[in-house]
Amino acid sequence: MALQHASPGQALDVHPLGERLLTEKTSALFKSLDLEVMRLVLLAGKSLPPHSVQGEITIHCLEGSLDVELDEATVRLEAGELLFLAGNAMHGVKAASDASALVTIALKP
Amino acid sequence: MALQHASPGQALDVHPLGERLLTEKTSALFKSLDLEVMRLVLLAGKSLPPHSVQGEITIHCLEGSLDVELDEATVRLEAGELLFLAGNAMHGVKAASDASALVTIALKP
Repeated sequence: MALQHASPGQALDVHPLGERLLTEKTSALFKSLDLEVMRLVLLAGKSLPPHSVQGEITIHCLEGSLDVELDEATVRLEAGELLFLAGNAMHGVKAASDASALVTIALKP
Repeated sequence: MALQHASPGQALDVHPLGERLLTEKTSALFKSLDLEVMRLVLLAGKSLPPHSVQGEITIHCLEGSLDVELDEATVRLEAGELLFLAGNAMHGVKAASDASALVTIALKP
């Protein structure tokens, strides 16, 4: 999937990538006034170091499995599961298997 | 799937409902400060009349197909596709086949 920057009213392909996981990179789908949506691609064993964003976020695992490391616990997120995180929540993400996820971030003015 | 009100850090099942589509209702997954997420369930031929919300929204079709009726056009949204709508955009939704979708709404203070 090429990088897509959506216009309102434009349908975007967010199917699982399948074998293309191995060659795709994390990409922004769109960033607007209130919302930013990206597709995170993380291959097995790769990780994002702990970080936080000001607004609330959801992580919707589309394929594979991700370990989301929170202050209080690590949450395993499998394909077909969605996680909601409070604003400013520190979180790291590690791929337990080749994975992609939709990440939706509430933007703050 | 029973009505779930998520706590932050709690994984939620958002798999396609499959045959349970026929008996499930639209349900809120959570509503917090910045984001509200619901699973819309709409059987073939059923519709939501045109309406708008203040914040931006995304509609992620999980199964079936939906016709999203905007002022300028009707957009067919198939399973695995995501649509982004601007705040205050009038939109109706009609199910072209039995469908469910994740609807994420950016809440305004």
